[in-house]
Amino acid sequence: MYHRYHQIEANVVVVDILRATTSICTAFMNGAKKVIPVATLDEAREMKTQGFMVAAERDGDVQEFADFGNSPFNFTKERVCDNEIVYSTTNGTQAIKMAESCHNVLVGAYLNLDTLSQFLVKDNHNVVIFCAGWKDRFNLEDTLFGGALTERLLASGRFETNCDATHAALDLWSIAKKDLVSYIQKTAQKTRLQKKGLDDSIEYCHTMNLTNIVPVLKGNALVSLNSCEKINNFS
Amino acid sequence: MYHRYHQIEANVVVVDILRATTSICTAFMNGAKKVIPVATLDEAREMKTQGFMVAAERDGDVQEFADFGNSPFNFTKERVCDNEIVYSTTNGTQAIKMAESCHNVLVGAYLNLDTLSQFLVKDNHNVVIFCAGWKDRFNLEDTLFGGALTERLLASGRFETNCDATHAALDLWSIAKKDLVSYIQKTAQKTRLQKKGLDDSIEYCHTMNLTNIVPVLKGNALVSLNSCEKINNFS
Repeated sequence: MYHRYHQIEANVVVVDILRATTSICTAFMNGAKKVIPVATLDEAREMKTQGFMVAAERDGDVQEFADFGNSPFNFTKERVCDNEIVYSTTNGTQAIKMAESCHNVLVGAYLNLDTLSQFLVKDNHNVVIFCAGWKDRFNLEDTLFGGALTERLLASGRFETNCDATHAALDLWSIAKKDLVSYIQKTAQKTRLQKKGLDDSIEYCHTMNLTNIVPVLKGNALVSLNSCEKINNFS
Repeated sequence: MYHRYHQIEANVVVVDILRATTSICTAFMNGAKKVIPVATLDEAREMKTQGFMVAAERDGDVQEFADFGNSPFNFTKERVCDNEIVYSTTNGTQAIKMAESCHNVLVGAYLNLDTLSQFLVKDNHNVVIFCAGWKDRFNLEDTLFGGALTERLLASGRFETNCDATHAALDLWSIAKKDLVSYIQKTAQKTRLQKKGLDDSIEYCHTMNLTNIVPVLKGNALVSLNSCEKINNFS
């Protein structure tokens, strides 16, 4: 689906609220130097043999060769500070790789929503919000974040949209934002995580503006926006 | 995208409100015997040489070999009564072909909404609502119809859903239904049709329950549900 919306000159915001992009933001909040997204488990396993710390899960299950899985609570200061972490998940890290040819690939989460939208408003490029979804299917939690980000971009007066998917996200957000954590109880991903006892981070994943870090892809690794040379017009 | 939701045993409702599935319902309301959906223009052209009446458009433009295009107002009694019509459109007829292996492929539009939902409630199969969208992209007008149909199916107490896309459609419908024609002014398809002077049927395409006919695919042709032997448990 993403290829239908691909724009080579756009700032692409990759969104996987439950839980990859929330976890990546958390890693940087806790001092990670780099997060290296890899699409396949084979790559992740190979990087582990090279000595990297590896976070890898599929369908919520931590892979046997990995150091830990996909909960943001795994990316603790003790583990990640000043470290480079290789990361492979079911949906989110694959989305990052799919968008890598664009102007910038940015990592979006509620944790960095306002800083992210401020960067996008100041930067002079179209924005594509790439909701990772679930195995090539629509999901609600990423779409709602798309609506929240769109609301902020439109409020700036610098953006407009004629995209039906964006209008839908905005309207869904207008319903959900009144009580976000209640709304997302009906998402399929909440049920999936609950079945595996992995739903303890859902409320955290919907917490606004805990950080002013925006992870951005530089080469093969995500780094914090401020340490990235490629972006030079954000003050 | 559809292949991710494909269920071989399901009743699949194909939806292309602006305008293919509305036009197909209109054809049967005006006495058409069969509508033969074809995916490609080559097939439509070949059927024309065989003597069929052909409706064919791409991106709102009537094809030069065709008798007429995609407006429901083209499918007049004078043209279609007791006739078989070959039909090929940008999105809708291709969706019908994609779903043809399923239990039943049914044509949904606001025109037949209540009769369609009554059939689905009485029939003992899962329902997949296949929104044709626009060139593999999401669109609002088909999604809203998906919400309207879902509302009726859930109200029956015979269905439940854990599908995020269905929840989203239902919530969008809850906003739009208060003033449907106003809401759809923001759809990209409205703008596309308007640019070509083809927006005269938009209000008609959102008119509820003008007919109790449900077109269903039998072999390579759509026929009216009541004349179809395959379905035998609908009274």
